Amino acid sequence: MSEALDRIFKARSIAIVGASGDPAKRGNQATRKLQADGYDGAIFPIHPKADEILGLKAYPSVLDVTAQIDVALICTPVGTLPSVLAQCGKKKIPGAVVLAAGFSEIGPQGERIAAETLEAARAHNVRLVGPNTNGVFNLHNRMNMVGVQDAVPGNIGICSQSGNMMLGLVTEAKRRGGVGFSSYVGVGNQLDVSLAEYLRYFGQDDDTRSAVFYVEGFRDGRAFLDTCRDVTQTKPVIVYKSGRTEAGQVAASSHTGSLASSFTLSRDLLRQAGATVVEQSDKLLSVAEGLSKLPVPKGGKVAILADGGGHATVTVDALVDAGVELARLSEQTVRRLRDVLPAAASCVNPVDVAGGTDDDPSVAALCADILLGDDSVDLLMLIGMYGGFAARFNPALLQNEMATSRRLADIAARHGKPLLVQSVYAALRTEPIEVLKDLGVPVFVWPEPAVRCVSELIFYARARDRNASFPLLEPGEPEREGSDILAAVLADGRDAFYEHEARDLLSAYGIGTPPQFLARSRSDLHEAARELGDRPLAMKIVSRDILHKSDAGGVRLNVHGEQALSDAYGSIVASAKAYDGDADVHGVLLSPMAQPGVEVIIGVVHDPMFGPVMMFGLGGIFVEILKDVAFRSLPMSRADAGEMIDDIQGSTMLDGARGQLPVDRTALIDLIIRVSRLALCHPDIVEIDLNPVILRHDGYDVVDARMILKAKGH
Amino acid sequence: MSEALDRIFKARSIAIVGASGDPAKRGNQATRKLQADGYDGAIFPIHPKADEILGLKAYPSVLDVTAQIDVALICTPVGTLPSVLAQCGKKKIPGAVVLAAGFSEIGPQGERIAAETLEAARAHNVRLVGPNTNGVFNLHNRMNMVGVQDAVPGNIGICSQSGNMMLGLVTEAKRRGGVGFSSYVGVGNQLDVSLAEYLRYFGQDDDTRSAVFYVEGFRDGRAFLDTCRDVTQTKPVIVYKSGRTEAGQVAASSHTGSLASSFTLSRDLLRQAGATVVEQSDKLLSVAEGLSKLPVPKGGKVAILADGGGHATVTVDALVDAGVELARLSEQTVRRLRDVLPAAASCVNPVDVAGGTDDDPSVAALCADILLGDDSVDLLMLIGMYGGFAARFNPALLQNEMATSRRLADIAARHGKPLLVQSVYAALRTEPIEVLKDLGVPVFVWPEPAVRCVSELIFYARARDRNASFPLLEPGEPEREGSDILAAVLADGRDAFYEHEARDLLSAYGIGTPPQFLARSRSDLHEAARELGDRPLAMKIVSRDILHKSDAGGVRLNVHGEQALSDAYGSIVASAKAYDGDADVHGVLLSPMAQPGVEVIIGVVHDPMFGPVMMFGLGGIFVEILKDVAFRSLPMSRADAGEMIDDIQGSTMLDGARGQLPVDRTALIDLIIRVSRLALCHPDIVEIDLNPVILRHDGYDVVDARMILKAKGH
Repeated sequence: MSEALDRIFKARSIAIVGASGDPAKRGNQATRKLQADGYDGAIFPIHPKADEILGLKAYPSVLDVTAQIDVALICTPVGTLPSVLAQCGKKKIPGAVVLAAGFSEIGPQGERIAAETLEAARAHNVRLVGPNTNGVFNLHNRMNMVGVQDAVPGNIGICSQSGNMMLGLVTEAKRRGGVGFSSYVGVGNQLDVSLAEYLRYFGQDDDTRSAVFYVEGFRDGRAFLDTCRDVTQTKPVIVYKSGRTEAGQVAASSHTGSLASSFTLSRDLLRQAGATVVEQSDKLLSVAEGLSKLPVPKGGKVAILADGGGHATVTVDALVDAGVELARLSEQTVRRLRDVLPAAASCVNPVDVAGGTDDDPSVAALCADILLGDDSVDLLMLIGMYGGFAARFNPALLQNEMATSRRLADIAARHGKPLLVQSVYAALRTEPIEVLKDLGVPVFVWPEPAVRCVSELIFYARARDRNASFPLLEPGEPEREGSDILAAVLADGRDAFYEHEARDLLSAYGIGTPPQFLARSRSDLHEAARELGDRPLAMKIVSRDILHKSDAGGVRLNVHGEQALSDAYGSIVASAKAYDGDADVHGVLLSPMAQPGVEVIIGVVHDPMFGPVMMFGLGGIFVEILKDVAFRSLPMSRADAGEMIDDIQGSTMLDGARGQLPVDRTALIDLIIRVSRLALCHPDIVEIDLNPVILRHDGYDVVDARMILKAKGH
Repeated sequence: MSEALDRIFKARSIAIVGASGDPAKRGNQATRKLQADGYDGAIFPIHPKADEILGLKAYPSVLDVTAQIDVALICTPVGTLPSVLAQCGKKKIPGAVVLAAGFSEIGPQGERIAAETLEAARAHNVRLVGPNTNGVFNLHNRMNMVGVQDAVPGNIGICSQSGNMMLGLVTEAKRRGGVGFSSYVGVGNQLDVSLAEYLRYFGQDDDTRSAVFYVEGFRDGRAFLDTCRDVTQTKPVIVYKSGRTEAGQVAASSHTGSLASSFTLSRDLLRQAGATVVEQSDKLLSVAEGLSKLPVPKGGKVAILADGGGHATVTVDALVDAGVELARLSEQTVRRLRDVLPAAASCVNPVDVAGGTDDDPSVAALCADILLGDDSVDLLMLIGMYGGFAARFNPALLQNEMATSRRLADIAARHGKPLLVQSVYAALRTEPIEVLKDLGVPVFVWPEPAVRCVSELIFYARARDRNASFPLLEPGEPEREGSDILAAVLADGRDAFYEHEARDLLSAYGIGTPPQFLARSRSDLHEAARELGDRPLAMKIVSRDILHKSDAGGVRLNVHGEQALSDAYGSIVASAKAYDGDADVHGVLLSPMAQPGVEVIIGVVHDPMFGPVMMFGLGGIFVEILKDVAFRSLPMSRADAGEMIDDIQGSTMLDGARGQLPVDRTALIDLIIRVSRLALCHPDIVEIDLNPVILRHDGYDVVDARMILKAKGH
């Protein structure tokens, strides 16, 4: 499979189906661009009548070509596809790039054409890029089917659902310099080859050091996540997921379901899988550049070497905003900096040379060497106006500055730590700046994009380690007791669990639940009181017809004493009947009132794109007003669970806010992992909603639990 | 005062004190740069011995020059300043630009020199820019004292505490093209001329259409706000306030005080005064460019005209994130678009031409005219690859595209509405792009900076209207009753009000407070119960020695019935004595329990920089965990109060969240305005803390009120 993509991207021979002598036609443009770029493979124009096109011998069909063909660029209209693909298959061409539009995007008729096209491709063993793509380029192969000008070769791969987004990256790279691209593919309608397969290709391509994906929608979310977890072990994957404000939500009847809005969910899951998620398209290129050029840092501590001015302050602001730590320099480092810098310099982090490099820029390299040699420094940012000393102060400094640029790149390589430069002279592309860029040091005009690179490098390093060393917790065999409970619910013809059944199922997976007693009638209350003890109880209606118990008046809290229990029982049943006269009342569930603590919600939902997903959030206004929730795809690791807990905005609530003791995080992680195992063991349960769970320093109480089975017939 | 600045920025003659023949010296560089730029005023090098410097006649002192001198650029060391300034004064030079460093930043000795320098400037009537500045430029006057290269003339003024930040703006403008600067001043130590005065100057300067301020700290916060409110009536003011993550907070003993962290406070107050606050330095130039070029929109509704691709999606995402509304096009507009666009085009907002401009770019101008002619459209964004049709598709389109650029600029001007263009070809600066920029249409490579401009234009329009039409509510005379209460607190030797005094003071300003009864002894309880009625009461200790009543066990809630009141009284007093054996117990305050509702906190604090400031936030975790508060400087308007309420993240809580009725916003605004009046009438009250106030649909209850007087001796 990946062999076909390999032959497409690294084609030694290309057939242009629908080649043309008319310069306004795509087939003509692609042929000219291939020639102009010096593509040294073979080009076979395919044209029903012409003998020659643009100086190349033309053929009536691919079958008339005797040489091997690696890829067909198909510029002919939709209707021709089945027969053209059949010929490609006969000719054993592994891949076709199909430009034609007019498929599923035009409605039912297009859907039918799409199905026929896919069938032809599958039947004839041709992998299909697009349709409705603007093509593919591989700049290292000088193969540019897209006809885009000004694309600078480099090590960033692009996979995009929008040709204009690729153009934006290409033109910005041209303007910025020092950054370029390996290959591009416009995925079009993703009729055949999926995003995950392109990602796998970029993962294996030696010319690609990082891959940028512009995604409007996944057709293969789960496969993409799996591939991403794998590929990010060796190279960074940067994703811009558009449509993040769309109202589309997973249709669901539980709280968890309604909170699973697509963007937050996609972002969390992509990050879990190691992807770098960028939410501003104007940051895509600089983040990809940093990640493709720089070594992966060993830790997350940053040193700043600044030559005065406000940029150091701006940098610190941006680092703190991004949650990045400043390194605490060793005493030896401070001493060594004092030796080379003027008395007015600040030799703690952020280091300010206080004019100490104005007359001799090479002092910057000395300082960089000292800082990168400090074990407490994982990354170094050179901030201010480096590269402009000759331009600003004295042209005689140019040779010194050029040599310093070379030394800086060398020092960073020797220490194996990332060095990033921010300089106001980057905009003017002075010679010392261009030397830095040529030697692989990214240079930024403003501090914020540099800081964004730093924080994404640190994120990438952590995600890579996490995914390498914490295996996902696969479910194993379902508990027999659990399967029995499920069978009972099914046998009763329900798709919603009774609460006591849900709690029993939790228990089967080792999740502690409070004692409970199902009173089927008033006469059971005496035994309930005896069993649950002399303390305030919560009472809840149990009915297959009542999903929202509180709305139906079906909940009474803090009920204490047999008379009160009896009164509450009567009133619950009466309310339920008033709410729905036909409601079948199975009984009333009694449990002790939970001790106070921090309310959270833990849920599982089945996302149509990504499959089973865990949700975690704080209860009350955090979830209702602030939608402060985090997601992870299942299976997940304990490390994932820990990060999911830290992801929510109000996570400090768990650390003992408002005078309380911190909650038991280990127990919480354990709970999440057990719920994930339960969900994976019983994939027929499409929604789980533990809401609320009350967390305390010594454990937790699952106060309410709801589970929904896949509706019959689905 | 402003006359002196006017003469500095528009100097017709400059004395270079400390002129030099050495090309490495600042005096030499400035002279050369002035000459190279073609400065056509007079330059007088001042040098103790030289007769001539760089071809100009030199003078031993300014007093030896016979012609009038508008400004002295002083390049000599700190020690010379008092005598040089004296000479400048004698020569009636209105302004001096002082480069020397070595003042307050070097400690007490520098503080003394600074004081002497300021004294000399004042005594001799010379306004002083700096010291420790890198100078001033006015590109329209070809006067560039800073010696910076590549500064493109234009209409943006810069005032910066960092020379490098100005350099960053200048180099980025050079790279981008189409944007430039009027004047720059490096404010240095702000020893004499303040930020507010520079702002006033830019407000009056005809060459400046918008002013950018990079501020590390205000020395004149209140004056800056007042000037800003004024200047933003005629032109936009863009502020980057650095140091936003610093831990520094206003020292204070109340909740309000501790929440008044400097950055949030500065940001809210600057926005209240009409400033555009930018938190990312890399967005400064593009925001300033948009605001300086574009007309002020009449409303906030945006139309998008896109030529396919992902940028339209990205733009919509970014607009929705920024809270900007998409225009709903009229039926007529849709019909007219249908007439000029192909069938596949989307003729609702966002409009997608679906290739309809590929062969004829002028169709873009037709569509723009239709869209801008729609009354429901306030701003138009042209999104995608405009300016690249000739480059991408057919060189023969170039003339068409150039003419279309001119038409687009013309159409926008005719409709008087902002037109912004985002194009991937902006990075390549194609000819049609450059025409647009030359004609005042801002062009962006990526959608996000364009969207940022749009949202800031809308913010500016609203802030300008708000500040023009809603006068600040000045306090008038203090209520006599209020002054009596204050006098009583003072007479009792306290700086903290008793709670009942604070409530009485609120009542004096027409703020409804619940009934209350101060029991001085147990024997008062009978009367208290009679007066407050047969309902649950709250009881709180009243003691000059106990500030944190709950901590001291001094609060009992829901006390009902005379026996319970008596018991609670005894236990409150006992707890207080146990907490502090020496505590003077003045009594116990009784009030009815408040009805449930939404808890908020309303406070006033005196900020050392900005003076009296109102704070508003939601109570509980919103304020404790999320620090979700908003600030406004006093006096404020009712419109300010309304916006302050909307500013907080959790403001939807007030709209009837969780099944409650919406709170009475009018009553809340009224309460805030009355508290502001109280605070302004009694400036000796340095902290007011109404925490919590419980808001309901039919009013509010001030449940607790604390007020602190300025400590004696301060």
